[in-house]
Amino acid sequence: MKPVKVGICGLGTVGGGTFNVLSKNANDIARRAGREIIIAQVATRHPNPNVDTGDVAVTDNVMDVINNPEIDIVIELIGGYTIAKEVVLGAIANGKHVVTANKALIAVHGAEIFAAAEAKGVSVMYEAAVAGGIPIIKAIREGLAANRINWLAGIINGTGNFILTEMRDKGRDFADVLKEAQELGYAEADPTFDVEGIDAAHKLTILASIAYGIPLQFERCYTEGISKITQEDVEYADELGYRIKHLGISRRGENGIDLRVHPTMIPVARPIAKVDGVLNAVMVNGDAVGDTLYVGAGAGAGPTASAVVADVIDLARTMDAPATAAVNHLAFDTIEKTYVLPIEDVETAYYLRIQVQDKTGVLASVATILSERGINIEAIIQKEPKAEDDVAQIILLTHRIVERDMNAAILAIESLPSTVGEVTRIRVEQLD
Amino acid sequence: MKPVKVGICGLGTVGGGTFNVLSKNANDIARRAGREIIIAQVATRHPNPNVDTGDVAVTDNVMDVINNPEIDIVIELIGGYTIAKEVVLGAIANGKHVVTANKALIAVHGAEIFAAAEAKGVSVMYEAAVAGGIPIIKAIREGLAANRINWLAGIINGTGNFILTEMRDKGRDFADVLKEAQELGYAEADPTFDVEGIDAAHKLTILASIAYGIPLQFERCYTEGISKITQEDVEYADELGYRIKHLGISRRGENGIDLRVHPTMIPVARPIAKVDGVLNAVMVNGDAVGDTLYVGAGAGAGPTASAVVADVIDLARTMDAPATAAVNHLAFDTIEKTYVLPIEDVETAYYLRIQVQDKTGVLASVATILSERGINIEAIIQKEPKAEDDVAQIILLTHRIVERDMNAAILAIESLPSTVGEVTRIRVEQLD
Repeated sequence: MKPVKVGICGLGTVGGGTFNVLSKNANDIARRAGREIIIAQVATRHPNPNVDTGDVAVTDNVMDVINNPEIDIVIELIGGYTIAKEVVLGAIANGKHVVTANKALIAVHGAEIFAAAEAKGVSVMYEAAVAGGIPIIKAIREGLAANRINWLAGIINGTGNFILTEMRDKGRDFADVLKEAQELGYAEADPTFDVEGIDAAHKLTILASIAYGIPLQFERCYTEGISKITQEDVEYADELGYRIKHLGISRRGENGIDLRVHPTMIPVARPIAKVDGVLNAVMVNGDAVGDTLYVGAGAGAGPTASAVVADVIDLARTMDAPATAAVNHLAFDTIEKTYVLPIEDVETAYYLRIQVQDKTGVLASVATILSERGINIEAIIQKEPKAEDDVAQIILLTHRIVERDMNAAILAIESLPSTVGEVTRIRVEQLD
Repeated sequence: MKPVKVGICGLGTVGGGTFNVLSKNANDIARRAGREIIIAQVATRHPNPNVDTGDVAVTDNVMDVINNPEIDIVIELIGGYTIAKEVVLGAIANGKHVVTANKALIAVHGAEIFAAAEAKGVSVMYEAAVAGGIPIIKAIREGLAANRINWLAGIINGTGNFILTEMRDKGRDFADVLKEAQELGYAEADPTFDVEGIDAAHKLTILASIAYGIPLQFERCYTEGISKITQEDVEYADELGYRIKHLGISRRGENGIDLRVHPTMIPVARPIAKVDGVLNAVMVNGDAVGDTLYVGAGAGAGPTASAVVADVIDLARTMDAPATAAVNHLAFDTIEKTYVLPIEDVETAYYLRIQVQDKTGVLASVATILSERGINIEAIIQKEPKAEDDVAQIILLTHRIVERDMNAAILAIESLPSTVGEVTRIRVEQLD
């Protein structure tokens, strides 16, 4: 078969990695794809010191790539919503297939992009958009296609996982580890996307869509970051047999699905609880297969390039076949409208840490407030004040309850005269 | 598009599970595949009490299915080498696509079967043959297609993992747990295939072929079972920070690949070390992606059916397209002859347990033997005799060394007058 010609837009970390993987493994890639894959053109404004572009045509204008009649597949590795969106829609309009690693673009503008692609009979592939090198999009869209997916949960931001791992393993504070992560290049100068869960919410939005066959609904994703996690909570989680991870979680219930990113306590016995450092991991539960877990590097030049190039190889196989040979963009050929539950309607278990003046009867008052709202207690730890002028702490694990009821209970507990300050609340999931 | 018609040969645990998944999830499956998938006929000699075949035609003769002109895809779930092989080759000869869960058939007769399929322009799919519901074939053949795979290692026999997990968690003996596994239905009446590693060797053979693009070479796979693992070794592994797992391991080296199934000590810090009970797990290391890990149920009606039906859905998409749209049977369109190293040429680290009479100077003799052969010691534990007439034990971890040299060292150690009985040897892998 005749070679496939690709154009790479963006030659930063991921673009450079993609260029290098396509070059270095060209022989094996051609043996797998059944045809040669040739880099026809690269668009970049800045040379990448890790890349030798050799004879490949380089332009500083991405439009040259999308208008290049020789090119079959445009690889968009610019990032962001603006130029990237123009590149992707422009490539589609010119009848080219697209591969992108851009989670924000897919999560926010995916519906428009996929509609344009379907109208033109081309494919937009985005394996690299979620969990880097882990082939999780393929696993859910194809590998688990026989299943009705019940739920999924993932560590899908490596920076957040690195911070939480360091906090636990070395007893360090959030701010201190964040600073190091920025120095190491794991976290951006503006770390909001990572530590406040926005990046994870983009990825979770995509995973939930392909798991259930529902529209991309980033705006409905509940997002809570890890910046308020304290060393105390990390230690109490340990004492209770749990780990705190920043998870994206989506579950299909009778009344709708939940779609939420927040710090979560999970039992230490689960293999996902041991996924530390910058690694990513996704658990998927299907009605036939039960629990499956996928672990690997969630970012970086090599891992992300691995996913980008896998998409190119898939396209090399199916691009000359009828469009029905390609997998549907969101896994299903019809998308079902599904209600996303507001966080108040979501049911989870809870960890509560309540600071109290050390007086008799406080625990009884707290227990009464919970019991009146049907909230059952799973475990209690009481901690005496560390110093004479300090407060005591009550640490509770509860059974599952709707968040609205827990909010009311927390308000009532905070109104007790013996309670000091705000109650700390971390959601708890057994993942079983 | 017009519906796809499948015929199921075998209605045991997996056949019944496949029937039920195709029926129960028919709506979602059709939405994913872009067309309806209809069970046109089932061949079985025994009714399955968990399956209501309803209006579906049932025959007791598998030849009826492979000769049924309506049927597009034959699903072979009989097992074994004899009738199963006839069914698969017969279906191919009749121009039908095949889906099978039969690891023994693919590992031993795969070359013949794939050649026949390619000559006829049909596909033989076998996701369910390795690690049950985990989409590991898809992950390696497609998800990691950009990579040069360096090594893979897997817990690919659930029975063996259940036995080792019980031995560790409950301090039980091998024979005792095996008996329970047989009562629970995890292990066959003849447990040889599971506990002696033959089943794992079938699966490893397949994984190595698709990882490197080399011929299926089951006969060259080194196979060692878990029946000699003692409670003592399990405890010493723990003390050293390791777990004993029955792994299938294949690594690509300069002189060839290794292909071996044996008990292996791995660091407890690796997430795969926590994969317990009947679960399966496979680690794959690629040059771009680094380490990835896949965990899930390796057997059972639902998980295996999940993989079988995923293959059917893939076929439903590509079967009417040119043959080039399908993935190559062994991942690559050309297969490279690659030398499989005899176990004597394989390099690993070792755990040695040496029983000795409690005399001064014994450790020095052992250390001299190792040092003379260039074997470096990583850690040593000495255990005093438990009772007065008992022996002392020397437990050693060594650095990596070629097995031939270790064999010579062990012979020399066993020849020392102070050594009692045979030296116990367990291979050690860091999986990093």
